[in-house]
Amino acid sequence: MNRRKFIKAMGLTAAVCLVRPPINAVAASKRKPNFVIIYADDLGYGDLTCFGHPTLKTPNLDRMAAEGAKLTQFYSAASVCTPSRAALMTGRLPIRSGMCSDKRAVLFPNSGGGIPKTEMTIAEMLTSQGYSSGCFGKWHLGHLPQYLPTNNGFDTYFGIPYSNDMDRVKDAPRNANTKPEVEYFNVPLMRDEEIIERPADQHTITRRYTQEAVKFISKNKDKPFFIYLAHNMPHIPLFSNKEFEGSSLRGLYGDVVEEVDWSVGQILDTLRKQGLAENTLVLFSSDNGPWLVFKQHGGSAGPLRDGKGSTWEGGMREPTIAWWPGTIQAGSLMTYMTSTLDVFPTLAELAGAEIPNDRVYDGYSMVSLLTGKGPGRRNTMVYYRGTQLRALRKGPWKIHLYTKTEYVGQKIQKHDPPLLFNVEIDPGEQYEVGAQYPKVIADLLEEVKKHQATVKPVPSQLEIPLSGDS
Amino acid sequence: MNRRKFIKAMGLTAAVCLVRPPINAVAASKRKPNFVIIYADDLGYGDLTCFGHPTLKTPNLDRMAAEGAKLTQFYSAASVCTPSRAALMTGRLPIRSGMCSDKRAVLFPNSGGGIPKTEMTIAEMLTSQGYSSGCFGKWHLGHLPQYLPTNNGFDTYFGIPYSNDMDRVKDAPRNANTKPEVEYFNVPLMRDEEIIERPADQHTITRRYTQEAVKFISKNKDKPFFIYLAHNMPHIPLFSNKEFEGSSLRGLYGDVVEEVDWSVGQILDTLRKQGLAENTLVLFSSDNGPWLVFKQHGGSAGPLRDGKGSTWEGGMREPTIAWWPGTIQAGSLMTYMTSTLDVFPTLAELAGAEIPNDRVYDGYSMVSLLTGKGPGRRNTMVYYRGTQLRALRKGPWKIHLYTKTEYVGQKIQKHDPPLLFNVEIDPGEQYEVGAQYPKVIADLLEEVKKHQATVKPVPSQLEIPLSGDS
Repeated sequence: MNRRKFIKAMGLTAAVCLVRPPINAVAASKRKPNFVIIYADDLGYGDLTCFGHPTLKTPNLDRMAAEGAKLTQFYSAASVCTPSRAALMTGRLPIRSGMCSDKRAVLFPNSGGGIPKTEMTIAEMLTSQGYSSGCFGKWHLGHLPQYLPTNNGFDTYFGIPYSNDMDRVKDAPRNANTKPEVEYFNVPLMRDEEIIERPADQHTITRRYTQEAVKFISKNKDKPFFIYLAHNMPHIPLFSNKEFEGSSLRGLYGDVVEEVDWSVGQILDTLRKQGLAENTLVLFSSDNGPWLVFKQHGGSAGPLRDGKGSTWEGGMREPTIAWWPGTIQAGSLMTYMTSTLDVFPTLAELAGAEIPNDRVYDGYSMVSLLTGKGPGRRNTMVYYRGTQLRALRKGPWKIHLYTKTEYVGQKIQKHDPPLLFNVEIDPGEQYEVGAQYPKVIADLLEEVKKHQATVKPVPSQLEIPLSGDS
Repeated sequence: MNRRKFIKAMGLTAAVCLVRPPINAVAASKRKPNFVIIYADDLGYGDLTCFGHPTLKTPNLDRMAAEGAKLTQFYSAASVCTPSRAALMTGRLPIRSGMCSDKRAVLFPNSGGGIPKTEMTIAEMLTSQGYSSGCFGKWHLGHLPQYLPTNNGFDTYFGIPYSNDMDRVKDAPRNANTKPEVEYFNVPLMRDEEIIERPADQHTITRRYTQEAVKFISKNKDKPFFIYLAHNMPHIPLFSNKEFEGSSLRGLYGDVVEEVDWSVGQILDTLRKQGLAENTLVLFSSDNGPWLVFKQHGGSAGPLRDGKGSTWEGGMREPTIAWWPGTIQAGSLMTYMTSTLDVFPTLAELAGAEIPNDRVYDGYSMVSLLTGKGPGRRNTMVYYRGTQLRALRKGPWKIHLYTKTEYVGQKIQKHDPPLLFNVEIDPGEQYEVGAQYPKVIADLLEEVKKHQATVKPVPSQLEIPLSGDS
């Protein structure tokens, strides 16, 4: 969606704040807050020290949590990359935008689809409010020009447009995941809409993304900005800068995560040095659970069950930290249910933007929760794989209509009656309690119906071949 | 061991400090530091917020870790109660003291054995150095008079002398673990060597143990003291004080752990208020892993495999925090291997006591590690169940000679060649790598031999019937 259409869609003047008077920090600084989203790739719930990893050292993220808030029940909207990122960027379930499919889990180099023009990205919403915006890292919402960040609200882009394990060279040794070499993956590195390096030197991408984001902050410090720093790591193949190689007790995966942690430290330090810390909300999370089939090269979901690709908790609950000195109470523990779907309305409220009323949104503003003024507003979460609704959570209860345990390569299983877990008492989903709570199951099945009534079929973007659109 | 024999065994005058000059805090205060060990029962590695639990709230333990050190590779010396506590109290493997058995996992109300007179407890070692000492809570090293705390170095005792699920009343409903009532478990509450309440009102024991310890601190603040506060909780049956009932998102188990957390807060607050914080080392840990067969009433080992009773990591790696403001660097993360076996030599060094040289000790002083002056000194750990050595760790490598996965009720399995895991890269013991590292296996098997050569058979205390000794 371009800016003109967006302003029309909003109906009102853009600067009106929807729900409540501006919060302290905004009022005090008399300018809109900056936003930085740092998104890791395939990082598991259990991979940070502050989320319980015994040997992986993440001092910068731990400090971020100590100065901000740890969100322990924060969900991505999908357990794989493209749909998860589409949901973050649009505030809408992938099933509404067509950014999911039962045939292809994500977009591939031979895909011709991408984020539809009719969708409004966070960047579009914020640039219409006077924000500068930069995207650094993995995009994965379409690599044809019209789908790239610079045509979807971002002023600038620097990164690999999809996953770092794509464009695999035909004769690359099959053990490429054990000892990856840069040349095995012929992925492009782009600046805006131009390929500037191919294959991208993956050893230096975490560092370069960070440097680009740091530069962007310095250049844009006098007006509100939005940064989407989406690391390709720790998705396989694992690459780190030389200074991190062999540095972690946790092996190569640990080296790579510790470099992502370093990156977070660089961003927060830059914000502090530029005097922007108290006017910037930084959110750290991951797109989906750890890719367990890659064993030591995949992460850990900690106490949660299964990982990437799964609608068990390990697939979609993410290690999440929010930081905004002076506004978010230091050392907060936020156990309320929250989601990437809530980021769009949160940033909209803080930026004073209205949310279009011509479409269904799936998020709830987290402003009152983050500012300590009230509880979380989310009471349900839906767990999709592709277009299939596999599970639904309401309060502490979660029903599974279908399960497929990814790390053991299980086939999909239908459950009738559904499986029932209390995921606050039993976050590992070990103790099925359906027989004791038939009314809870009935209530959650009602929620399934209510939700499904809001979903209208749209064409899948992930099934469009390259030839059909290029 | 009584004091006279102990002083003889030491050979030298008691006040000589063994290894290095007194550390800062000791020197500054010009008196020996106080020691408080807070020991939880069956608490899992993943059950604290700061160890990654999503819904269990442990603000006092989190603050303790933020002000002190989190020890992420700290092992108990056994995966069940009696041997684990014997090792803590003596600094020696249970196989050396006879406080283990292949026939009976722990001491029971019909047991006639207990901690042998020839063993020296931490309390005996410290009282010989002029310390006052109090034991509050679960003892489980023998309930006949000669085995009780007051006959093994402690000036005073208040607690249930064994597990809180013992003395089960014959006709108590079999679902007693689901909705426990105090009357179902006719366990005695003792003061020194006298039973003062039976059945103990388990709803109030966590609170009363805490109050007793707080009182002890206030009464003994003018001389060095040692407190062993060994909560019966969160071992089943789960009981909490009314104000904690229903307070946790994590259910009854959470209520109970949150009361233990409250207790920790009370102790640290008292130390602060009395001006003793900077002269007191507080150590928090658990006797063994979570009792997984009790499902929602058992804890979580977080990312670790299996729980109580097991020689997988979940059985013996404990959530451990050390606190000593001004001496332990606030917010330290200590990933070095450490153990309850190391507590005895650590306290001995800090108290200026010599360790008897007439017996084998299995620990290494943690003083240089805790004070930030050097790395950890432990490089190996042995994992026993009863008298059977089932696994050995050296550096990051762990071999399993035998495994028995407790939570699925598996039978014991022998492994030849042994299973091999790198538990720093793979703390969940998911990825066996023996085929790639035959030399590592050979090296660890050498360590097994070296260790076994130090072990001499002693009679088991756990197999002595009550009639034989009372």
